[in-house]
Amino acid sequence: MNMLVDGEWRTDAYETTNEDGEFERQETAFRDWIRDDPDARFQPEAGRYHLYVCYACPWAHRTLLIRKLKGLEDAITVDYVDPFRDEGGWQFTPEKEGCTPDTVNGSDYLREVYQAADPDMTGRVTVPVLWDKQGETIVNNESEEILRMLDTEFDDVASRDVDLYPEGYQEEVDRIIDEIYEPINNGVYRTGFAKSQAAYDEAVEELFDALDHWDDVLADQRYLAGDRLTEADICMFTTLVRFDQVYHTHFMCNKKQIQQYDNLWPYLRDLYQTDGVAETVNMDHIKEHYYTTHPDVTPTRIIAAGPDLDFEADHDRDELPGGPPESLLPA
Amino acid sequence: MNMLVDGEWRTDAYETTNEDGEFERQETAFRDWIRDDPDARFQPEAGRYHLYVCYACPWAHRTLLIRKLKGLEDAITVDYVDPFRDEGGWQFTPEKEGCTPDTVNGSDYLREVYQAADPDMTGRVTVPVLWDKQGETIVNNESEEILRMLDTEFDDVASRDVDLYPEGYQEEVDRIIDEIYEPINNGVYRTGFAKSQAAYDEAVEELFDALDHWDDVLADQRYLAGDRLTEADICMFTTLVRFDQVYHTHFMCNKKQIQQYDNLWPYLRDLYQTDGVAETVNMDHIKEHYYTTHPDVTPTRIIAAGPDLDFEADHDRDELPGGPPESLLPA
Repeated sequence: MNMLVDGEWRTDAYETTNEDGEFERQETAFRDWIRDDPDARFQPEAGRYHLYVCYACPWAHRTLLIRKLKGLEDAITVDYVDPFRDEGGWQFTPEKEGCTPDTVNGSDYLREVYQAADPDMTGRVTVPVLWDKQGETIVNNESEEILRMLDTEFDDVASRDVDLYPEGYQEEVDRIIDEIYEPINNGVYRTGFAKSQAAYDEAVEELFDALDHWDDVLADQRYLAGDRLTEADICMFTTLVRFDQVYHTHFMCNKKQIQQYDNLWPYLRDLYQTDGVAETVNMDHIKEHYYTTHPDVTPTRIIAAGPDLDFEADHDRDELPGGPPESLLPA
Repeated sequence: MNMLVDGEWRTDAYETTNEDGEFERQETAFRDWIRDDPDARFQPEAGRYHLYVCYACPWAHRTLLIRKLKGLEDAITVDYVDPFRDEGGWQFTPEKEGCTPDTVNGSDYLREVYQAADPDMTGRVTVPVLWDKQGETIVNNESEEILRMLDTEFDDVASRDVDLYPEGYQEEVDRIIDEIYEPINNGVYRTGFAKSQAAYDEAVEELFDALDHWDDVLADQRYLAGDRLTEADICMFTTLVRFDQVYHTHFMCNKKQIQQYDNLWPYLRDLYQTDGVAETVNMDHIKEHYYTTHPDVTPTRIIAAGPDLDFEADHDRDELPGGPPESLLPA
């Protein structure tokens, strides 16, 4: 296992399957919260927090999106690791297009950041990481929680009036985020990392049953939770935008492509064209990461060519009720 | 290399790439001809010849198709090897659905048939094989030549009046078969077996340039050579019918699917619905073979789920001039 075990780096297979060949994602280790509360250990302050992300990673992409949509670029800094992950794990390669050095801790590998936060840390070294420059530690490395914190606790430092967890929708947003996680967000990994036919067959069927369901839902409403853009759409987007060009071929999620869905495909384009979203999508990093980093899946490490997709094509979703917050209308 | 070397079986990688990572297909070894000529060593006679094929193999599929379309089922017997090819090469597993024993030579592995024909034989053990029961040897193992022989030399024993190499079309048929071989028929293998990004990029671009070209041609004519069904269509069919379910995902030929082409997809359905053709397509064997037999490509040996295709859907190609021979009209 390629992970930290009581502060020691162990190099082995990165992805873990159980005896039935089913992919089992491990729990993230840091789960503290930033709260807009004077007694809180971690308080929302401009300049205090830093994100470590990889453009390729759908979990990290959630945090990049909320940072962008809320207008937190000045308040929260960000570094980008190399999309190619070798035996040393996520790495800083500033010479590479789209990548940066570790501007906060000066490390070469992201594992050093984890070790700086906790020398005895045990678990996988993953992105995103939300780092507290003041406390010199990791606040949280669970994407859904970072998304929620940045969305709900940083209004005072955000430059855009955007609320993706609005009153009256919260229960539904939580329910949807939970409902899509296992079959869709994690489902593409369960499909692609399956080591037995039975595990694959079950995962791929659950995945497409869920996609079919949401395609139906989106026939009559603009967003997952209705007429409002919410965090649930962020969570869906980062999986859908990778689907046809990576998951379909590399992870053999090939019953259909998103571009073959009547509603999911216009919905995906609608989200893509929401102001700020396209700038967070680095398809070169996405394709390089998956195809070259999983030799158990694509041993040649060759990056597949297709398909070409026009994310900028008209979507006509604005004929449905609702729309993005005014500050996120397409330019 | 998994092949016969002067009569010895060597077990190693089956597929060969050069130092640039490009797949290089080896020449077939047996190239004799059956001729409707009293002086010929091999003459067309009912009951004398036998085909060894695999349902999965597009080259073998050509010979199955011409046998069926000409009505040579009674004149030429056939045995089917297991679609899963292990280190021993093609194997007879009569207990498996769709497979047969070697009813002629009683061998367990196809290599024994090659050794029976020539104990010093050197080269890959491939399907199809055209066996002469009278001379107890292999006549030919080159699919295009077997297709031509069965098409042109067996009219006296064929039960259907079908000529897929008609006068006035022959030069064009030869030209097309030659033109589509490298970018399309062999192109999917060059794409899928590429061991370098450069070799893959070149092969996948040539493949889709060629598919785009033929999609344009087929906008105005029913078949590759015009208004007549010919051997060129047989050669195109066996690649196209495997494309979306195997080559697209397994061989990363994923710029487009055939079902996304305006003309290639109806053309493929038109051929599929020509009388006799569907019975030669065993999609279970096709999918099992590719996904489980190339661990260098799909190391998990998991068979991908999709896509679902309706080969029986209306194609409307009969609005174009021409059509299949009368005896091959859809039932």
